[in-house]
Amino acid sequence: MKLPVRVYIEPDPIDIEEIIERPEQKLEKLGDQVANIIYTVQEDGDEALLEFTRTFDGVDIDSLEVSPEEVEAGSRLVSQELRDAMERAKRNITAFHQAQGKKEPLVETEPGVFCWRKNRPIERVGVYIPGGTAPLFSSVLMLCIPAVLAGCKDIILTTPPGPEGNIHPAILYAASISGVTEIYKVGGAQAIAALAYGTETIPQVDKIFGPGNRYVTMAKQMVSVDTVAIDMPAGPSEVLIIADNDADPAVLAADMLSQAEHGFDSQSLLIVPDPMLSNKVIEQLKVQLERLPRKEYAAASLKYSRIICTRQKKKALELINRYAPEHLIFLRDDWDQWDEEINNAGSVFIGPWSPESAGDYASGTNHTLPTSGWARSYSGVSLESFQKHITYQRLTQEGFLSLAPTIEILAATEGLEAHRMAVEIRRRALAIPGKAEDNGVQKKGGLPT
Amino acid sequence: MKLPVRVYIEPDPIDIEEIIERPEQKLEKLGDQVANIIYTVQEDGDEALLEFTRTFDGVDIDSLEVSPEEVEAGSRLVSQELRDAMERAKRNITAFHQAQGKKEPLVETEPGVFCWRKNRPIERVGVYIPGGTAPLFSSVLMLCIPAVLAGCKDIILTTPPGPEGNIHPAILYAASISGVTEIYKVGGAQAIAALAYGTETIPQVDKIFGPGNRYVTMAKQMVSVDTVAIDMPAGPSEVLIIADNDADPAVLAADMLSQAEHGFDSQSLLIVPDPMLSNKVIEQLKVQLERLPRKEYAAASLKYSRIICTRQKKKALELINRYAPEHLIFLRDDWDQWDEEINNAGSVFIGPWSPESAGDYASGTNHTLPTSGWARSYSGVSLESFQKHITYQRLTQEGFLSLAPTIEILAATEGLEAHRMAVEIRRRALAIPGKAEDNGVQKKGGLPT
Repeated sequence: MKLPVRVYIEPDPIDIEEIIERPEQKLEKLGDQVANIIYTVQEDGDEALLEFTRTFDGVDIDSLEVSPEEVEAGSRLVSQELRDAMERAKRNITAFHQAQGKKEPLVETEPGVFCWRKNRPIERVGVYIPGGTAPLFSSVLMLCIPAVLAGCKDIILTTPPGPEGNIHPAILYAASISGVTEIYKVGGAQAIAALAYGTETIPQVDKIFGPGNRYVTMAKQMVSVDTVAIDMPAGPSEVLIIADNDADPAVLAADMLSQAEHGFDSQSLLIVPDPMLSNKVIEQLKVQLERLPRKEYAAASLKYSRIICTRQKKKALELINRYAPEHLIFLRDDWDQWDEEINNAGSVFIGPWSPESAGDYASGTNHTLPTSGWARSYSGVSLESFQKHITYQRLTQEGFLSLAPTIEILAATEGLEAHRMAVEIRRRALAIPGKAEDNGVQKKGGLPT
Repeated sequence: MKLPVRVYIEPDPIDIEEIIERPEQKLEKLGDQVANIIYTVQEDGDEALLEFTRTFDGVDIDSLEVSPEEVEAGSRLVSQELRDAMERAKRNITAFHQAQGKKEPLVETEPGVFCWRKNRPIERVGVYIPGGTAPLFSSVLMLCIPAVLAGCKDIILTTPPGPEGNIHPAILYAASISGVTEIYKVGGAQAIAALAYGTETIPQVDKIFGPGNRYVTMAKQMVSVDTVAIDMPAGPSEVLIIADNDADPAVLAADMLSQAEHGFDSQSLLIVPDPMLSNKVIEQLKVQLERLPRKEYAAASLKYSRIICTRQKKKALELINRYAPEHLIFLRDDWDQWDEEINNAGSVFIGPWSPESAGDYASGTNHTLPTSGWARSYSGVSLESFQKHITYQRLTQEGFLSLAPTIEILAATEGLEAHRMAVEIRRRALAIPGKAEDNGVQKKGGLPT
């Protein structure tokens, strides 16, 4: 068997452009179809959702809502071993995300000018979980646990029903331990439309999270410019592994395949010093591929895989930072000499005992990460993804009077006379006895406590 | 003169739906035109930019780039008074945004499982500053100063040239003190396209910031689903003022007008306890409106203004949180009793000496804030807007072995066999002498210092 993996030895600048190219995503083609689904849901609400579920999921359901009894009955089917594993993942995800909640300082930017920020939860969040044979309950944990920690009031989960009209027990159990407040049986672009605009049954949310197929991705893009925020732009999953010659070829092959099995368009890049190691990895890929139940995915997506052999650190760093991988696995002993120069990546896995699966499931970091090069500008999901901050200011009379001339000249220069006037009129009020007294900043509660 | 301000006395639920409605934005109509501009810039690069500048800005320029000599010459035209005012604003903006840089903790989520985050600058950011008669130099300060503090390498400013082909001296001076690295003379959707895709002269950036007209807003939306992040969705500016009966009607009117003068679709809401105060405010609006040079804007946008008279705190809070104002001015003595219940707002101004203009220009908070109800899910621009964080993990051999069975059962249940295999293969390596030794976590540099 010949694998379609491309190997580059000391790539030149033209090779580098080719290496960092992603498998092409042709979302635009879906535009009309998805727009039509969204429009129909806006018009017909629940009826449209039930109809689309019949059409796309092939199942006729009576009710969109999943009852507490269904959750309980489903949860009972989950083995104790799986429950324990989910609970452990939950503890670690909680520990890591809880540490992200920080109190902001009160800043007196100049005498009598107090500015501060406060984090506030996004009130209603929607979490989309894809259906299919493999129940992605880990995304339930990754998205709902931080939402609870952030203080979100309503955490609304939607996921398509299976052929019997049920939700997979593992998803129901994960939802029950993650603080989900409502669950609805609806998938695809129609679920995103329901969360974005609300229907008779499904409440409109403020932000939508979660993975999905191309229809879901397109729908998230479309609603995100209109009414609702989304976690981040989505693309196929990807990994970049950088290893030294001491790395175990079997481990390198396993790490490449654990990315490649995600789907036909997943991408694995590997940077090694020597072609010799590259050859060993390819041998291992062949051996391990045979053992995989999802080998048709993995084998197909290997055509997007590249192995790059280079001894030049500068070139390797350029590749990493320009590619901006979702996952970066660092199997080199000299990590500490690279650390400061890694600027673009979603999540980094350091050393031989940190497989990507650790972060995908149980170490505590979030697995919802920027793909397709978005790591240049986006972070993965964190506590902050479920919050926004509000800025506050309170000026004392003295602070105001001192800053007033500065504000007035700046406003006047921008031609915003009413902005200047809002300052002048306060200055003038001071000249009138009994007007606009300031008990302001001394009062209890005027500044954050 | 009769003002078009609508007054509601103890509004019922139907009134509330009407009050929180925004002036309608019909961006979709511009879609084809903007898409065409973007496409042309992608195809023809600089040539397209020069041509669009001739067409839309009515000026023929030789070079897109603003030279250091032009910056210096322009800056010399700025009065000492204006320079001092900008420098003071810069000091305060720096003080407030610098306090936002926080070091993250190292979290040992369970023994031997170390997770942490690091903030990294977004390398190349683009800042769009609109043209027109009023030079919005304050947005240069608000967007470029935090970019420098965040560590951005390239800060690229674009703004349309005036009728003589020049940039306003105040913008050039603001750029020179704010750390801008490159300035280009180009405006409109074509500037956004250039920043998103790059041309021969203008480099492609990772994130685009800044205000703009409807074409610019539409272009930002369009490129944001393709290749580049944007600061936030943009809409017309707005304020909600809540006052008690002690508030000065002249101040309330001035604060409403300072919002209304922004444009035809700006919106001011005012909540007061009594209709008596409402009447006094309307009288003051009439008086002050006459004095404004931009009174045609302010008078027109007053048709979107509403004064709500209510003594019910619950109703007032519902209005605030559902409207989610960009600016919230709090002119009530009992602020501390409301504070915890304000969940959705961009920036809050507390007490009689904190006009919105203070935050717009000089107190130190950022004036780039979420509009159109986006405050439900978005924060204003801050230091973090110019950074992303990367998560890291490093497991010790012991940490890995302890967590391995948990990861394996979770991966297997999701049907991701290669994910499980990446763990198993590491476990097996331990049984082979000399394979995959862990000197890992004890090593210098393996964990953050």
